[in-house]
Amino acid sequence: MTAPHMKAARLCKAGEPLVLEDVLIPVPGADEVLVEVSACGLCGTDIHLAVDGDIPVSRTPITLGHEAAGAIAALGDAVEGFAVGQRVALFPAAICGRCRFCRAGRESLCENSKVYGMSRDGALAQFVVAPAFGLIAIPDGVSLQQAAIVTDGVATPFHALRSRGAMKAGEAVAVIGCGGLGAHAVLLARLMGAGFIVAIDLQPEARARALELGADLAIDPAASDAGKAIRTSYGRGVDLALEFVGRAVSVEMAIRSLDIGGRAVIVGVGAERVQLPALVSFVGREAAVMGSFGMDKRDIEDLLALIARGRLDLSRSITQTYALGEINEALTRLARKDAGVVRLVVEPWR
Amino acid sequence: MTAPHMKAARLCKAGEPLVLEDVLIPVPGADEVLVEVSACGLCGTDIHLAVDGDIPVSRTPITLGHEAAGAIAALGDAVEGFAVGQRVALFPAAICGRCRFCRAGRESLCENSKVYGMSRDGALAQFVVAPAFGLIAIPDGVSLQQAAIVTDGVATPFHALRSRGAMKAGEAVAVIGCGGLGAHAVLLARLMGAGFIVAIDLQPEARARALELGADLAIDPAASDAGKAIRTSYGRGVDLALEFVGRAVSVEMAIRSLDIGGRAVIVGVGAERVQLPALVSFVGREAAVMGSFGMDKRDIEDLLALIARGRLDLSRSITQTYALGEINEALTRLARKDAGVVRLVVEPWR
Amino acid sequence: MTAPHMKAARLCKAGEPLVLEDVLIPVPGADEVLVEVSACGLCGTDIHLAVDGDIPVSRTPITLGHEAAGAIAALGDAVEGFAVGQRVALFPAAICGRCRFCRAGRESLCENSKVYGMSRDGALAQFVVAPAFGLIAIPDGVSLQQAAIVTDGVATPFHALRSRGAMKAGEAVAVIGCGGLGAHAVLLARLMGAGFIVAIDLQPEARARALELGADLAIDPAASDAGKAIRTSYGRGVDLALEFVGRAVSVEMAIRSLDIGGRAVIVGVGAERVQLPALVSFVGREAAVMGSFGMDKRDIEDLLALIARGRLDLSRSITQTYALGEINEALTRLARKDAGVVRLVVEPWR
Amino acid sequence: MTAPHMKAARLCKAGEPLVLEDVLIPVPGADEVLVEVSACGLCGTDIHLAVDGDIPVSRTPITLGHEAAGAIAALGDAVEGFAVGQRVALFPAAICGRCRFCRAGRESLCENSKVYGMSRDGALAQFVVAPAFGLIAIPDGVSLQQAAIVTDGVATPFHALRSRGAMKAGEAVAVIGCGGLGAHAVLLARLMGAGFIVAIDLQPEARARALELGADLAIDPAASDAGKAIRTSYGRGVDLALEFVGRAVSVEMAIRSLDIGGRAVIVGVGAERVQLPALVSFVGREAAVMGSFGMDKRDIEDLLALIARGRLDLSRSITQTYALGEINEALTRLARKDAGVVRLVVEPWR
Repeated sequence: MTAPHMKAARLCKAGEPLVLEDVLIPVPGADEVLVEVSACGLCGTDIHLAVDGDIPVSRTPITLGHEAAGAIAALGDAVEGFAVGQRVALFPAAICGRCRFCRAGRESLCENSKVYGMSRDGALAQFVVAPAFGLIAIPDGVSLQQAAIVTDGVATPFHALRSRGAMKAGEAVAVIGCGGLGAHAVLLARLMGAGFIVAIDLQPEARARALELGADLAIDPAASDAGKAIRTSYGRGVDLALEFVGRAVSVEMAIRSLDIGGRAVIVGVGAERVQLPALVSFVGREAAVMGSFGMDKRDIEDLLALIARGRLDLSRSITQTYALGEINEALTRLARKDAGVVRLVVEPWR
Repeated sequence: MTAPHMKAARLCKAGEPLVLEDVLIPVPGADEVLVEVSACGLCGTDIHLAVDGDIPVSRTPITLGHEAAGAIAALGDAVEGFAVGQRVALFPAAICGRCRFCRAGRESLCENSKVYGMSRDGALAQFVVAPAFGLIAIPDGVSLQQAAIVTDGVATPFHALRSRGAMKAGEAVAVIGCGGLGAHAVLLARLMGAGFIVAIDLQPEARARALELGADLAIDPAASDAGKAIRTSYGRGVDLALEFVGRAVSVEMAIRSLDIGGRAVIVGVGAERVQLPALVSFVGREAAVMGSFGMDKRDIEDLLALIARGRLDLSRSITQTYALGEINEALTRLARKDAGVVRLVVEPWR
Repeated sequence: MTAPHMKAARLCKAGEPLVLEDVLIPVPGADEVLVEVSACGLCGTDIHLAVDGDIPVSRTPITLGHEAAGAIAALGDAVEGFAVGQRVALFPAAICGRCRFCRAGRESLCENSKVYGMSRDGALAQFVVAPAFGLIAIPDGVSLQQAAIVTDGVATPFHALRSRGAMKAGEAVAVIGCGGLGAHAVLLARLMGAGFIVAIDLQPEARARALELGADLAIDPAASDAGKAIRTSYGRGVDLALEFVGRAVSVEMAIRSLDIGGRAVIVGVGAERVQLPALVSFVGREAAVMGSFGMDKRDIEDLLALIARGRLDLSRSITQTYALGEINEALTRLARKDAGVVRLVVEPWR
Repeated sequence: MTAPHMKAARLCKAGEPLVLEDVLIPVPGADEVLVEVSACGLCGTDIHLAVDGDIPVSRTPITLGHEAAGAIAALGDAVEGFAVGQRVALFPAAICGRCRFCRAGRESLCENSKVYGMSRDGALAQFVVAPAFGLIAIPDGVSLQQAAIVTDGVATPFHALRSRGAMKAGEAVAVIGCGGLGAHAVLLARLMGAGFIVAIDLQPEARARALELGADLAIDPAASDAGKAIRTSYGRGVDLALEFVGRAVSVEMAIRSLDIGGRAVIVGVGAERVQLPALVSFVGREAAVMGSFGMDKRDIEDLLALIARGRLDLSRSITQTYALGEINEALTRLARKDAGVVRLVVEPWR
């Protein structure tokens, strides 16, 4: 009798195509489950990992993919509260459930976190093993594709808006970088009752989409100074600016777009270092700059419930789906930064 | 030359019809303005004052009306920042701008507040005098009728949801009493991204309207236990319950509808006294009950901006308009608690 | 070979003395530890359980005691992060670590909580078994006696002040009921920079002690109206009132003592039901009443650190210590409500 | 009859000594009062204005001094609520009381603010004119000298700790720069129940004083890496770091001293620009950096009450007092950054 195998998209070397390998189906530990992957979204981070190589992985080869949902195929001995066959979404990292941050409901800061596809085999495979603590049950009425992209592509801007940005109804919000995360930020700011939403992106298609999703104003930062354009249109700066690009220039744009007393929340990551405005201005305006990293489990749970009740419409979020064998084609398309792309989803079972 | 006069709807004795009198047009003090009233909404409080008499007025006769908007007709000598002809909404009370609450942006708690139609002549007249501190400029794109009802009928539930209830996107909200305030509470909870909205009202028309405005569930409290019905449908109690009736039975219903750790915000006023649940339960569930009184100026400003940007749609809020001479007809209709009524508006210039 | 036994103080029937029994030393499960008890405080709840019988236990006989500290004697197979011999304090209930409240750091609301001495054998014994999730390491410089009383007697008022009451430096605080919990509330309000502290208690000794611990004013509610006395002395009501008695009359006193916009936090439990003031007053003053139940693990951790650094002085908190064989004498003294008593501690190893 | 004159210390040119001139006693406008100055503190900002010239003034000559208290000598016609002879402290800027920030209780952000000694004649004179809105009554038991330094030297770090930093009891706090503001930050962090306080300063005397005022640890940043030293001593980074120096190097030190999820609050101003850590670290640790500018009136009011009740002891804060004629000697001493100096106070009546 041969051991059971599965297909997995493995990163061997950044800059080279992923390799589709036959690997052993992993066996869950006592507190883990085996999930048969139905959908796995692709994300800008995957480009950093697989194409640019500027975010390192802990070992190679490693199976990529951290934005996934599927059905439970097997349960570890100590797992309670879940059943084989149940539909679940995966928190994008294997989280411990025991550290001070997991205990406080701030799971993205888990001290023992292992991100799928970075320091642990991910979900661009037919199966993935995940700790039960990182599972979120999917309510009826939410598709597995939508659940997959919620876990990161939608939950990350929700965390930035709700938890870190503490956005209140009526506030003015700027979204800088309107790709997958930023487009959802516009949608969510609208859902939460923002009083004014300005979208800033270099690509005309991204700006057009942001306007369709609910932005009041779209600015091309190559053509005009964003801070001035906001003040001209809105009368003052914004209360909350969200940055999804991860470049110094765009973070500095976020800060300049703020009203007195405003908050800039940075989501984009990269190696660049940001220069704050001169202290006399930064302090005198009581500006604030804060990082927002990933999401809490609660963010994912609440978003899934909002979709199930018809409050949040992701019907336009998934641009295209691919089979696992088409993974390199999908990554290439994503890396081109096609403006039409919101989220690409891989379906490993196809 | 005769002194200039105007028509005003005056309360002489509770329980008797208002009297349409010719009175002198009032003259604004140094910090005041004279506003020509374009629209004045009617509110449950007006029934208490004029029909039931269970909320006292400070003197009779007194001109009723505290939910108004119009154009500035004259400025006091010391008024800055406003111009004759400008469209303005009136904070529902004359507020001082100097006390510790005005200074902290909590104007409804003003220590020197004089509510129009209760302790100062109100806006059911062709003109009304108001302190400049209580004026809110109306942005383009908002009608004077809508601006009028925003000042109380919409701002009061907004204050309860945003400031006192601190509602977060994704939370479950119960609205108890779906008349003028409660219907807008449903609309606003939807605007702010509530995850689940349950509307509770005795009248089938009010429940039907709440469902149209965005409620997920409507309960007839005469037919079923609201707390149980919520738990059956939603799986647990709500995070936030808003009470707009002002009766002990409905406040107690609000508390019973709460999830562990939930907050009940009471808006309805009356002479009744509420009994909390047994302390062992109230404390053990970390319940909270808090009053929400009126609104801040900021609430009105933000709502007007939301309407101007097309974010908040009040097109179905004004059930009918009346001329000043029809005031008693309008009050009678409101007092009947016609389920079809959201807001009735009087136009004194007609 | 005989199985190992220990002494335990067991409740057989409320109203009768506890019985000192020889029972088997319990064996920890996989996620549990066995703790050799060094100190176990007595608490008003113990009087409810053992003397008055108005709080029921889930079975009899049951070992009492929920305010304990000691040294780890044995570890379950799955326990990580603790070692035999380590000094630990026990969260007053066995908490699951998995429910939505444990995950959010609100452990006193744990959905699977089993309070020691109520629904699980407690710590008035030589040994107690506790889930590892409920252990808090004791830093150097904190005695086991002090650590024991921190877990409930000090952490409960800290939770009421810091988490539920959100007390800010400079605020005025009323403490109603200045026994074990209330005396520590005075001490902690002082530690947190309260601007004014008023202590309300029927007993002159309790009032005198509160003044020594940092209260600015002490009121005998039998001799004068507390609300009026506060306003006379302080000029207005308090921002935050804490109730530790659990009677309707004292909760109503807490509410009446509030300034406009103030918060009343109720800690005392009982079967009585509180009547709120008339809604027109409760709402018009934007009053708030909220329950505060127990504490979070974080409260205990932070208090132990404050003691270790010399910031919090509990040297006067432990009135007397007893051997396990003297437990009924200790309970009798506590039940007499001797005003001199802050906390009585039992040392089962003596 | 000659017009009444007074002595005033006037800045004619930065870098040159202040000139003691005889000038006309100013006449208060309708909403203003004339205050006879009893005490005026000197502040690092005065060195920037008078010595270094790197913060510009709006005109010369100008009377310096923005940290003052005195007795009301005359009232403008429209002033209510104050009386001649009453002891008052001055908000450090003439604030309008009408803009959106004044209305929200965030007076330091006043849109029409005129700082004394920068854009309006200040209080290093026998008399100063101030808008009534900027006066704070001084309670009995607080000296005029102490009231003077509270308005800026104590209120500024209080604002940073309480309002912007939202410090909670039990949190770990770093104070970077332990001069006049920083020394008071240590005192106030202690008052508010900080769990751990680390003081960072180049001068041994400043570090020694910080330890006396309540710091647990003092670090010389020239001798060791502050971030590492904190982690070695405390086990992790701090929850809140306050920066009072206004240099890029010290702000970067503040950020490096933070625990995951920590907040850095910058008070120091200057022309330098700060570089944030690489975004991947700043975002991944959910760091926050925010400016804190001046204080609210409420901060000053609450501090005066804390002193009046004996909760806050400023007896060691005033290092030395000077007559107005000694102003240049005082400035010279302050400019030397004598480590022994907390606050120098000028008494113009001497």
